[in-house]
Amino acid sequence: MSRILITSGPTRQYLDPVRYLTNASSGRMGAALAEAAIDLGHEVVIISGPVAIDYPSAAQVIPILTTDEMLDAATATFADCEGAIGAAAPCDYMPKRVATEKISKTGDPISIELIETPDVVAMLGQIKKPGQWVVGFALETEDQRFRATVKLQKKHCDLIVSNGPTAIDSDDNSVELLGPGGRVIESISGNKSHVANRLLSQFDALLIRKT
Amino acid sequence: MSRILITSGPTRQYLDPVRYLTNASSGRMGAALAEAAIDLGHEVVIISGPVAIDYPSAAQVIPILTTDEMLDAATATFADCEGAIGAAAPCDYMPKRVATEKISKTGDPISIELIETPDVVAMLGQIKKPGQWVVGFALETEDQRFRATVKLQKKHCDLIVSNGPTAIDSDDNSVELLGPGGRVIESISGNKSHVANRLLSQFDALLIRKT
Repeated sequence: MSRILITSGPTRQYLDPVRYLTNASSGRMGAALAEAAIDLGHEVVIISGPVAIDYPSAAQVIPILTTDEMLDAATATFADCEGAIGAAAPCDYMPKRVATEKISKTGDPISIELIETPDVVAMLGQIKKPGQWVVGFALETEDQRFRATVKLQKKHCDLIVSNGPTAIDSDDNSVELLGPGGRVIESISGNKSHVANRLLSQFDALLIRKT
Repeated sequence: MSRILITSGPTRQYLDPVRYLTNASSGRMGAALAEAAIDLGHEVVIISGPVAIDYPSAAQVIPILTTDEMLDAATATFADCEGAIGAAAPCDYMPKRVATEKISKTGDPISIELIETPDVVAMLGQIKKPGQWVVGFALETEDQRFRATVKLQKKHCDLIVSNGPTAIDSDDNSVELLGPGGRVIESISGNKSHVANRLLSQFDALLIRKT
């Protein structure tokens, strides 16, 4: 039995008190992974941005709003976990300046400068101790396998799951599980529950039973 | 019996295939207004952005994603309606350029130029014929009553509902119903169902029975 951290859902980065940047991540992949991990007897902590779905009642859920909050909750929680799965789609850009009042329309264009938010999975990859493991997700529209492999290396992940934009807010997913050097361990397609069960069975064999 | 158009929920404006600008509008105020209108015997068409709530089954619902789509659906639907209530929170800025591929992170800040989206309620106010009425909603963080009154005039609304940012994604609301010149017709606080019933009863007396 392992204790596994799963990040899930989107995060929000506000421009002003009303408007924000985000993406359509539904949390369904995170929920399916949590269900699959619990079915295998593991303990699950989910750190999730705002979603409309329900997570398994056996999982502990820590709700957060912004990428910074996800990073803080994830690094604190990871200390007591054997592994982490980064299934969230954290908003990776944030406005350099956040307006304290709602920006009023004037008829003119406005220019906003966006800076990168901290990378949650990369931080987990950086702080992981011997015996701990980190699995990332890569969502790309072009050169998916190549870019996922680069992310695996840069973020010090043990494995990475490569998927495309059709995964977002969908019941189904089509993924490649990649190992170091971009080796394709398994290609999996189907509903997110099937994909999650196959992935967890691979994580169990390749990462959990080894530790 | 009137046929009433209600716009509801947020809209999205994409920067690239994954990231978008939006707000936390839940559609709950629109759903409560639809329920209240149906209770008074009216026919309701809801044009709604992506929301997690359920609208009354007696209402016709037209789902849209962007502000442009909301505008097209609203102007087409308004032709067959006696009145329109603009309870939506359409995303009012859009990126001037939309990337066709997911923008890759480079470590550097990026600058995006935002232009205003078309104003759905202002367009309905502009095209309304004698006998038709339009009610807007104004959400402001500062000078709420003054800014709402300016919007009422600029958008050719018959009445405007002024509320603050705490209304967003909340079960409760606290509003002022304003008439021409900023006259306060009624201040209403409570859950959105109560607020919607009071508002509809005012619209019935001041707008619907007159036409």
